[in-house]
Amino acid sequence: MMMHRRLLSTTVAKCNKVVMSGIQPTGVPHLGNYFGFVENWLRLQKTEPADTQLFLCVVDWHAITTGPLPAVELRDNVRKMVAGLVAAGVDCKRTVLFRQSAVPEHAELTWLLGCLETTARLQRMPQYKDKSLQYKKGDVPVGLLTYPILQAADVLIYRGTHVPVGDDQTQHMHIVTDLADHFNKQYKCEFFPKPLKMASALARVKSLRDPTKKMSKSDPDARSRIELSDTVQTVREKCKKALTDTESVVTFEMDRRPAVGNLVLLYAAVAGLSPDQVVKEMSSVTTGEFKLRLAECISQRFEPIRQRYEELLASPDTINAILEDGAAKARPIAKSNMDEIKRIAGFS
Amino acid sequence: MMMHRRLLSTTVAKCNKVVMSGIQPTGVPHLGNYFGFVENWLRLQKTEPADTQLFLCVVDWHAITTGPLPAVELRDNVRKMVAGLVAAGVDCKRTVLFRQSAVPEHAELTWLLGCLETTARLQRMPQYKDKSLQYKKGDVPVGLLTYPILQAADVLIYRGTHVPVGDDQTQHMHIVTDLADHFNKQYKCEFFPKPLKMASALARVKSLRDPTKKMSKSDPDARSRIELSDTVQTVREKCKKALTDTESVVTFEMDRRPAVGNLVLLYAAVAGLSPDQVVKEMSSVTTGEFKLRLAECISQRFEPIRQRYEELLASPDTINAILEDGAAKARPIAKSNMDEIKRIAGFS
Repeated sequence: MMMHRRLLSTTVAKCNKVVMSGIQPTGVPHLGNYFGFVENWLRLQKTEPADTQLFLCVVDWHAITTGPLPAVELRDNVRKMVAGLVAAGVDCKRTVLFRQSAVPEHAELTWLLGCLETTARLQRMPQYKDKSLQYKKGDVPVGLLTYPILQAADVLIYRGTHVPVGDDQTQHMHIVTDLADHFNKQYKCEFFPKPLKMASALARVKSLRDPTKKMSKSDPDARSRIELSDTVQTVREKCKKALTDTESVVTFEMDRRPAVGNLVLLYAAVAGLSPDQVVKEMSSVTTGEFKLRLAECISQRFEPIRQRYEELLASPDTINAILEDGAAKARPIAKSNMDEIKRIAGFS
Repeated sequence: MMMHRRLLSTTVAKCNKVVMSGIQPTGVPHLGNYFGFVENWLRLQKTEPADTQLFLCVVDWHAITTGPLPAVELRDNVRKMVAGLVAAGVDCKRTVLFRQSAVPEHAELTWLLGCLETTARLQRMPQYKDKSLQYKKGDVPVGLLTYPILQAADVLIYRGTHVPVGDDQTQHMHIVTDLADHFNKQYKCEFFPKPLKMASALARVKSLRDPTKKMSKSDPDARSRIELSDTVQTVREKCKKALTDTESVVTFEMDRRPAVGNLVLLYAAVAGLSPDQVVKEMSSVTTGEFKLRLAECISQRFEPIRQRYEELLASPDTINAILEDGAAKARPIAKSNMDEIKRIAGFS
């Protein structure tokens, strides 16, 4: 019986969780990134057992899939994202934080997996259909079509078992799991685990200027989002300008009063309360006053992060060292897996 | 004046020729490969000045663009191609002979270039249109669409200046030069030279069973081609079975007598004669006798190559050492160029 238990635990030990996620280098993270992704990652850092491997990849190859960026912009965006993530609490001792393009095996595996996938499947992806509309017929960059393959490689090169993704990524996750499966079947092996989508309770933070849209870096109106680099003063101004409506009482009615409801949700996320608790707390104040309280609440939580962010950003050597350290941890694992993949598929 | 000349020669020295070519690992080369590609490469080895760099890449990533191959088959095909090339005279001291998948930078640059190219352009490639017909609508592997980008990366990662390609590759060469140009313009640099197509007088060897088709590995009838591994006996049998017609005199009339004309061309290529010289030499023999003479002529030239081929193939360590040595020469160059490309494009 003891023997059996020991064997069992060995088997389990071999199947350690490997959590892999990519984040676009869109520059300094905003509260949408924070509550939609970063907070969940910080939770994983705390709650996952020590033998769970955590890979967090700043996906700079993905940043050019809608066309090339000026080099200075891309470089800055990566630095700002890394500074933001670390300032927010990503712990480089616990998380392997690295830049995608620093690990060549992502691109190598992308090529191989691309020969196991069809163009038709990629053309059916809803995000491809959406984004390709902005191009003249056919002028779509190849990278926009093929990036779900790169996403699959990002996960599979580490033999990822768990991927924290939003619902908008469900179809892309199917591509990841199908490719893992296809490779294993094609080469009669069990090399890739079938990665699972990791559910998480995320707050979907909306634009401060339009509650029907996600808070997003691509919104030309900077007042629509609060960034981790915003000072107390800027946070206050943006909150004051946040969209409300003609009623002055604070209620949580998403259908009838989406703008105020959105602010309630944001306050709830920042303060760690439920929307009802927020409404109760704000029962005696106007929406105008509520917006000032929201600004205060945000600054209280994020001002220390902003200060760390500015310190990091002022020290390019520190950011480079963080990225170099992450790549030095990720590369040998990716290389060793790619060597094995090549052996399995006849490339060595 | 002396000063000026010296400066000029320095500039020229910086613009050394870099000849890059890829060859598919289709197994042991046949005479179509030999006269269509290898012979020209051997000529380059002899005639190019010492400061011309010669890269010859066995493109195993390309071998899976129409779908994956069994690992054993791919591995064998690479070994046979390398053994055939070296037996035929590819000199690993003069030529950097290596396997594509051993140099990760080919795949890395492919990703970047794919974001500078459009899907429409790739879909217009004649070879894509041809080859995609064999798949059910849309079931086309992504690699079949994107392989011209990989071809471009194969050349550009070495900053190739010259590419010996056949006429069927003209459109793909345009993609290579346009991508070089696009990158330079996009990032305001002169990093990539504009690679030139290298013209060469190649003998287009046809199938021994059907003079309208190229001699090809994909022909299911092995009698249609002569391989470098064919023994004197096999060469004799294949030549005896080669298609002729009802007339017994040897003439060179490609329109009226394509089968005999094809054999005349093959004899001419093997013996280094003109078709007219062959006809003159064979003026007193029947086509039946001519086929035996052809077999003799082929064996005289290729039997020593066959013997070297068998020796090499019997020594996997030698082949591995050749490939490892080639990769060890190619990799630092590709890495250094890719580092610079990343710097230019903001990936580092």
